[in-house]
Amino acid sequence: MENNIARLRITCPDQPGIVARVSNFIYQHGANITALDQHSSDPEGGQFFMRLEFQTPHLDVSRATLAETFAQQVAAPYQMDWHLNYAADVKKIAILVSQADHALLELLWRWNRGELEATITQVISNHETLRSAVENFGVPFHYVKIDAQDKGLTEKKILALLKDQTDCLVLARYMQILSEDFIAHYPNAVINIHHSFLPAFAGAQPYQQAYDKGVKLIGATAHYVTKELDMGPIIDQDIARVSHRDGVNHLQEKGRDVERNVLARAVKWHLEDRIIVDGHKTIVFV
Amino acid sequence: MENNIARLRITCPDQPGIVARVSNFIYQHGANITALDQHSSDPEGGQFFMRLEFQTPHLDVSRATLAETFAQQVAAPYQMDWHLNYAADVKKIAILVSQADHALLELLWRWNRGELEATITQVISNHETLRSAVENFGVPFHYVKIDAQDKGLTEKKILALLKDQTDCLVLARYMQILSEDFIAHYPNAVINIHHSFLPAFAGAQPYQQAYDKGVKLIGATAHYVTKELDMGPIIDQDIARVSHRDGVNHLQEKGRDVERNVLARAVKWHLEDRIIVDGHKTIVFV
Amino acid sequence: MENNIARLRITCPDQPGIVARVSNFIYQHGANITALDQHSSDPEGGQFFMRLEFQTPHLDVSRATLAETFAQQVAAPYQMDWHLNYAADVKKIAILVSQADHALLELLWRWNRGELEATITQVISNHETLRSAVENFGVPFHYVKIDAQDKGLTEKKILALLKDQTDCLVLARYMQILSEDFIAHYPNAVINIHHSFLPAFAGAQPYQQAYDKGVKLIGATAHYVTKELDMGPIIDQDIARVSHRDGVNHLQEKGRDVERNVLARAVKWHLEDRIIVDGHKTIVFV
Amino acid sequence: MENNIARLRITCPDQPGIVARVSNFIYQHGANITALDQHSSDPEGGQFFMRLEFQTPHLDVSRATLAETFAQQVAAPYQMDWHLNYAADVKKIAILVSQADHALLELLWRWNRGELEATITQVISNHETLRSAVENFGVPFHYVKIDAQDKGLTEKKILALLKDQTDCLVLARYMQILSEDFIAHYPNAVINIHHSFLPAFAGAQPYQQAYDKGVKLIGATAHYVTKELDMGPIIDQDIARVSHRDGVNHLQEKGRDVERNVLARAVKWHLEDRIIVDGHKTIVFV
Repeated sequence: MENNIARLRITCPDQPGIVARVSNFIYQHGANITALDQHSSDPEGGQFFMRLEFQTPHLDVSRATLAETFAQQVAAPYQMDWHLNYAADVKKIAILVSQADHALLELLWRWNRGELEATITQVISNHETLRSAVENFGVPFHYVKIDAQDKGLTEKKILALLKDQTDCLVLARYMQILSEDFIAHYPNAVINIHHSFLPAFAGAQPYQQAYDKGVKLIGATAHYVTKELDMGPIIDQDIARVSHRDGVNHLQEKGRDVERNVLARAVKWHLEDRIIVDGHKTIVFV
Repeated sequence: MENNIARLRITCPDQPGIVARVSNFIYQHGANITALDQHSSDPEGGQFFMRLEFQTPHLDVSRATLAETFAQQVAAPYQMDWHLNYAADVKKIAILVSQADHALLELLWRWNRGELEATITQVISNHETLRSAVENFGVPFHYVKIDAQDKGLTEKKILALLKDQTDCLVLARYMQILSEDFIAHYPNAVINIHHSFLPAFAGAQPYQQAYDKGVKLIGATAHYVTKELDMGPIIDQDIARVSHRDGVNHLQEKGRDVERNVLARAVKWHLEDRIIVDGHKTIVFV
Repeated sequence: MENNIARLRITCPDQPGIVARVSNFIYQHGANITALDQHSSDPEGGQFFMRLEFQTPHLDVSRATLAETFAQQVAAPYQMDWHLNYAADVKKIAILVSQADHALLELLWRWNRGELEATITQVISNHETLRSAVENFGVPFHYVKIDAQDKGLTEKKILALLKDQTDCLVLARYMQILSEDFIAHYPNAVINIHHSFLPAFAGAQPYQQAYDKGVKLIGATAHYVTKELDMGPIIDQDIARVSHRDGVNHLQEKGRDVERNVLARAVKWHLEDRIIVDGHKTIVFV
Repeated sequence: MENNIARLRITCPDQPGIVARVSNFIYQHGANITALDQHSSDPEGGQFFMRLEFQTPHLDVSRATLAETFAQQVAAPYQMDWHLNYAADVKKIAILVSQADHALLELLWRWNRGELEATITQVISNHETLRSAVENFGVPFHYVKIDAQDKGLTEKKILALLKDQTDCLVLARYMQILSEDFIAHYPNAVINIHHSFLPAFAGAQPYQQAYDKGVKLIGATAHYVTKELDMGPIIDQDIARVSHRDGVNHLQEKGRDVERNVLARAVKWHLEDRIIVDGHKTIVFV
């Protein structure tokens, strides 16, 4: 992990000169661009997206000044929606999970091995099942009982735990539906893993649905959570080959491997500021 | 290609002793089993499926006698649904196509190279576009105009061309919907390639649908055609990775490669008697 | 996991009637065949390989009698090399590891989740690094110091620990070369994961070699260990796509995911008696 | 295909300000950047690589002036090795082939369908086998007999045919070794498809080698040809899964699909100026 880099993500109407303007600004303030990706939905009248990584040691101004100057001199004239993140500001992740351990443990392992640029602040579950697995990693585990009569109360308890501890919330096979109000606290920052190749088999029991249909591939989809269930912007997907020999339990077993890899990639890309949400789709600069 | 082999496919209620009974029968008639695959949906009260390949040079009886004896001595007591095919009886394929050439040419090429155990008897199209491409392979090309007022008439013309020339009908991106009556002439023998990962994006313009949804993988599905559009038993599926950089035209370009490979595999498996249809699913012994 | 099944693996000279003879034998002793795979290197004068899974509850004789009778009545006349395993005899695995945790943890996790039909009896390492990770799973951890002056002594200590506790020994990134004498204790039962697509980049530092060569795919290979380093029968291989952006450290990171999946599959297949070693190659019935 | 774009590829010592300098230059001459990729082997003292696509309709100077000005004002001060290509200058491809048709036909098809930005000027072969297949596409076919006594003479004849007709030479399974002198005529412009996952199984009969070794994956490698046989910079690689069931002929059949796809991708990337050769490796901006 690199501590001396900053990442700038930009969305704006496309027009000539954006790259020149932005790269000049960065250069003039003493930073070296080490990665640059861009995408235009249409050079004539489309949207322009850019991600830029630069080294910060020789910046000639403070972060605050850099941001303010950029806002005035570059972002405003080009009508930019922009985000500037510093790798040194390690993101805080919280994980919501139910009873299945595979997606959770994949994240904890990779994090423990230094593959995820994050602090995992806590794991919250509606079951006690995974407490010791989590605590073995030195990560706090919180059990929050689902109050079936008052889901709002449950969500309030979770929000209280998340407060000031959460830049990104990962649903690592959390089998409860979160309310629109809840999600509004973390726009484009709640990542879910759905155990199907969306939009196929949205909703409950996707492996059973896949089995009943007789598909030859099963999939998993990592997406940002929005108010519409299983319909948020897709970050990544992958599949595994299956056959008539695979019962629902085998689909689940093969699916677990796909789920954990897809979720881990999506979280990694989010942490590295590689994703720009564009309406109900994503731009992923990898 | 091997000319001295026969392939037996069996479906029956599972019970102990089926493998022993069938393999004994084959052995006692002088044949050597060179491949055997089986599947049971459930050893207790499930369905049993088997595919067996054996060498025919030392058979001690005629084909007719073998079939008759098998029917009486083995198939009847075990309530078998069975098919016995000889590789020497090369299957006759006809291909229906519209204007896109990729799926068609993939089949013609592989066939020309000896990879498909078939005679391609003809290509029928509702456009003249691909005539010379087909005739270059020495395969007859028939143009059948779609009569929008009387689709039944169009189908009658096609059926007349197919008559006695067709064991398997391949829809290599044929952009017309065939009637239930038409399909009934070739049960479990009409293979279609759908340009999406079914059941996602069934119906028209799947690549546009995929683009609008922002998926990160596109797919193709080869399936037997049944009366319900895009819902027949799936034979094979595959996918390609796409990104925000891919417009609809790129999805189509990448999709073509997936489509032609998936269709070619499905046709190959059908020709080699590797598929058993089980309701609205398939067993594929590969 | 299924406790009521047995698996029979057979290698013998090919000739007609083997399937019939074996399946009859099984049937006559009251067992139901639930899986059967076979392979012949050449129907004329080749080797025949078969794997058969059958249910044991209605067997009419003891295990000892079954084995004895099979040996006399079937194996001897057909000159069979054969192995009969019962799923209820859960295999004992020991794992050798150095400092990298990924391959080890993948096995421990899958085992903990019930995906591996085994008892993991112990983990032995030449480092203390992974002790708590292992002990968290309730598995004994043994540190065995490498005596650089006397490698034979080190191996003796390891053999003493393994004794009576080991049907299969897994090298989950164990960075020491084992002697021919050592390996002779566990013929076709020591599984190694090599971090390259063998035979490319055998020997030390395969990721550095791959980086220097500029390959666009990296791989991993699980194989049985033989006296020739990195040359034993290959069980499984897989790859990941890389690019010019990937430094050696990225190759290692991407490689870890490939290594752990390939090793886990190979171990699973070994445990399920799916592998027959054929000289310096393997037959894997999956 | 887009006719109004130009592509600039740059290699130079890394230092701050390159992106700003280049993008300003492009902008000031009235062009809109539509794609930009860069890579640095090391921000401190490494090599910098960049590929830039820009739209040309509003360029304020002639091509010659643009190139001259760029050379003086940008390339010289930054010590750049650079290439500027215009999509409207469609590249001329010649193909060398022996008897196997699959790689050749894949290129001809894709080209015929408009997927390759090229003019295929001719196909040259040391066999007559593929004449009609080539001529059906309206492409000239030349037979050049191999003079075993005087390979130099053969190469002279080929060079005479290629003269002024060739920006890129594709070896689509051409089974003759070309001399160092010959290759020197087309530096970084001769693309070969090798039918193995290089560096494994370099040299003759790689599928036989792969079969003998018992690998579980076979591969293909597209690379630029250099004087060292099968050792030139790798452009792309891919693999297919194989098993003990696959004889050498099956490896060849499966391998053909891999070969043609890998070669087609490599040629496409070359034509789109996506590749920068960096010593014995490649940077591929896709």
